[in-house]
Amino acid sequence: MRTVKINKDSIADILNDLLKRSPNHYEGYQEQVDAIVNDVKARGDEAVFEYTEKFDGTKLTADTILVTEEEIREAYDKVDPSLLAVIRKAIVNIRDFHQKQKQNSWFDTQENGILLGQKVTPLATCGVYVPGGKAVYPSSVLMNIVPAHVAGVKEIIMVTPPGRDGKVNPNTLVAAKEAGAAKVYKVGGAQAVAALAFGTASIPKVDKIVGPGNIYVALAKKAVYGNVSIDSIAGPSEILVLADDSANPRYVAADLLSQAEHDEMASAILVTTSEKLAKKVSKEVDGFLKQLSRTEIMEKSLDSFGYILIAKDLKEAVDVANSIASEHLEIMTENPFDVMTRIQNAGAIFIGQYSCEPLGDYFAGPNHVLPTNGTAKFFSPLSVDDFIKKSSVIYYSREALEPVHTDIETFAEQEELTAHANSIKVRFEND
Amino acid sequence: MRTVKINKDSIADILNDLLKRSPNHYEGYQEQVDAIVNDVKARGDEAVFEYTEKFDGTKLTADTILVTEEEIREAYDKVDPSLLAVIRKAIVNIRDFHQKQKQNSWFDTQENGILLGQKVTPLATCGVYVPGGKAVYPSSVLMNIVPAHVAGVKEIIMVTPPGRDGKVNPNTLVAAKEAGAAKVYKVGGAQAVAALAFGTASIPKVDKIVGPGNIYVALAKKAVYGNVSIDSIAGPSEILVLADDSANPRYVAADLLSQAEHDEMASAILVTTSEKLAKKVSKEVDGFLKQLSRTEIMEKSLDSFGYILIAKDLKEAVDVANSIASEHLEIMTENPFDVMTRIQNAGAIFIGQYSCEPLGDYFAGPNHVLPTNGTAKFFSPLSVDDFIKKSSVIYYSREALEPVHTDIETFAEQEELTAHANSIKVRFEND
Repeated sequence: MRTVKINKDSIADILNDLLKRSPNHYEGYQEQVDAIVNDVKARGDEAVFEYTEKFDGTKLTADTILVTEEEIREAYDKVDPSLLAVIRKAIVNIRDFHQKQKQNSWFDTQENGILLGQKVTPLATCGVYVPGGKAVYPSSVLMNIVPAHVAGVKEIIMVTPPGRDGKVNPNTLVAAKEAGAAKVYKVGGAQAVAALAFGTASIPKVDKIVGPGNIYVALAKKAVYGNVSIDSIAGPSEILVLADDSANPRYVAADLLSQAEHDEMASAILVTTSEKLAKKVSKEVDGFLKQLSRTEIMEKSLDSFGYILIAKDLKEAVDVANSIASEHLEIMTENPFDVMTRIQNAGAIFIGQYSCEPLGDYFAGPNHVLPTNGTAKFFSPLSVDDFIKKSSVIYYSREALEPVHTDIETFAEQEELTAHANSIKVRFEND
Repeated sequence: MRTVKINKDSIADILNDLLKRSPNHYEGYQEQVDAIVNDVKARGDEAVFEYTEKFDGTKLTADTILVTEEEIREAYDKVDPSLLAVIRKAIVNIRDFHQKQKQNSWFDTQENGILLGQKVTPLATCGVYVPGGKAVYPSSVLMNIVPAHVAGVKEIIMVTPPGRDGKVNPNTLVAAKEAGAAKVYKVGGAQAVAALAFGTASIPKVDKIVGPGNIYVALAKKAVYGNVSIDSIAGPSEILVLADDSANPRYVAADLLSQAEHDEMASAILVTTSEKLAKKVSKEVDGFLKQLSRTEIMEKSLDSFGYILIAKDLKEAVDVANSIASEHLEIMTENPFDVMTRIQNAGAIFIGQYSCEPLGDYFAGPNHVLPTNGTAKFFSPLSVDDFIKKSSVIYYSREALEPVHTDIETFAEQEELTAHANSIKVRFEND
């Protein structure tokens, strides 16, 4: 890991560098993705089956694209009982945390006959994308489905690419069933996103598509945005550890590597006020690299997007953390709750020596679908908010409208919208 | 206006027809918009000045692109005092309603040393697009800026195209100042959106871009989504009046026209259980068309996207309203609050004979930036929610992590993420 002293130029360079990981920079893939999306929109199932054969190496039909009850039973037979047990424990925590996010419809009244408010309604349907391939993450299934379930979405549909044998990974299936998916379709990639956005004979159109995926999935989600809603576009994972002298270098190193192992594009950054800690962490990282698997991925990720940044004081360290706006931010300082109050931008904030990132990935309850690539400046973690929408509610009595009706007419007339003014006027034309 | 009896086929046809108004169907413009966006991204101010000269017919420089304090004073001199008075009254109502939307940061604790919660932080900056050209809507300025202001956004930047004289409309400027804009730049179209998304020498990069605009603006917002956040992509305006025998046909007709006058692509639909009302409304519409200005726009809009739909009962009427998911929904039935409870999808719901749509456009307080084109199925009105984001907050003590640490390790190992497991393990390696 490179060690760099923080100054204006070094930070600008690093920020630029990190943004190269953004899905917004993969323009080369857009055309290919758009072609798939438009094809599925035009030809529906037929196109879905063709792309699945091409990309996943398995032939599907309208009869086999939907995972059957029997396949789910088979999955339960195959899944490791210890995994099933921890999935069930995690679901309790995830459900509990997301329950607390639920927003009520509300209204406010005035005594002359005015009621104003917001009606909260869950989305009717949603589609959850779950990646397949080399890496299977049942935790991701839980994190995407549980919030939808808690929000009250009636039909939660999961899509995930099948293996060459035409089957879905049993861990994924069991997680889906436990979390509350109504249906699971064996389809992945841009073709799955397009099918959910426009509907096909087999796959119903949904209101919103969520879930992480590769670059094809990310770009396809962007392409269908507006036809449906989507969650934020996920980029490669990242962690920023903000630490002072009090931090345990072994913990810091282990946590940096926990993100570096995800992906060659992942980013792991330590920002510290302590050069002593910096040296120790660097050494611990080297030690762990020799012990752990996935070494090649970790080394590439650290070479490309790993940094140890030396700050002159805590304020500078916090400023850098805010400008990077990391997906995961761990605070290991003497007074971590105080530092937390100063954090403007982060997907999830982990406080203290024992709140390590994998605790949030798997177990604590808050969502692990988090804004990446600096988008924590404006996006939020996946939550119940993603699966509801609001309608304004407006009631005015005649008594309430009467004293303000000429004001409203004035406003409309100033905007030269005479039919708007007329809509108010007719209600008082016989006065 | 066509009168159509509701059945499965007629509704499917109408829904298809209405969706043709969506910005998602204007693919012809995408290439042109992308070219402008990429050019501004690459060349910054220089490109902004060129496009402004080309599209708005005025030559800007780095010295004149920002509206000055003196220009704002001039605007106050020019604005009609009656408009200023009603703008101020409206702001009080809009601010009051949006204040009630504010969400608190929250946390929950468990007595073994667990704290979980969500930290709510306002966006640091936002850009508000305000259309110029033929129609000037100060109300739109208020509706976009006030929620950002209430949310606590520090720097609210407005962009709006200048006239050929290089000036911004005084009504727009006064509204911006009253609502709380920090700066106003004289730039419009896709070039303004790109400047806000990527930043130029003159125009700062923002976290989120909101505000309605023409097709160029809508597509540019979609193009930069992910680099910044955006509000939902606005399509042409629409109203659906759900009425029974008890409705006043003159009010219904006036309200339908209040949306039809916006735009040739606007849509005005009456859904009613009463054929008698349908006939009377049709007659009143014809009467108003002779009296009002903007007749040509209204006639075209009604011809293309205006319908009177006859439902066999209230349930069918509600079902149709839910499937259309109108931007504005007026309920003029005998028991309108009961009907409201059955509405799943609508941007804003106006209840009863005196709650007409222009009341919401200008005055009542709820936002008039609403989801269009059926997107009320998954999008919400513009609100304070749009100008905040959340960070998860996770604290576990050693005491809390210890009893679950092997569970988390199991989960990570099942996902073959050994560095994740290691991050937990190192914390207990000396036990």
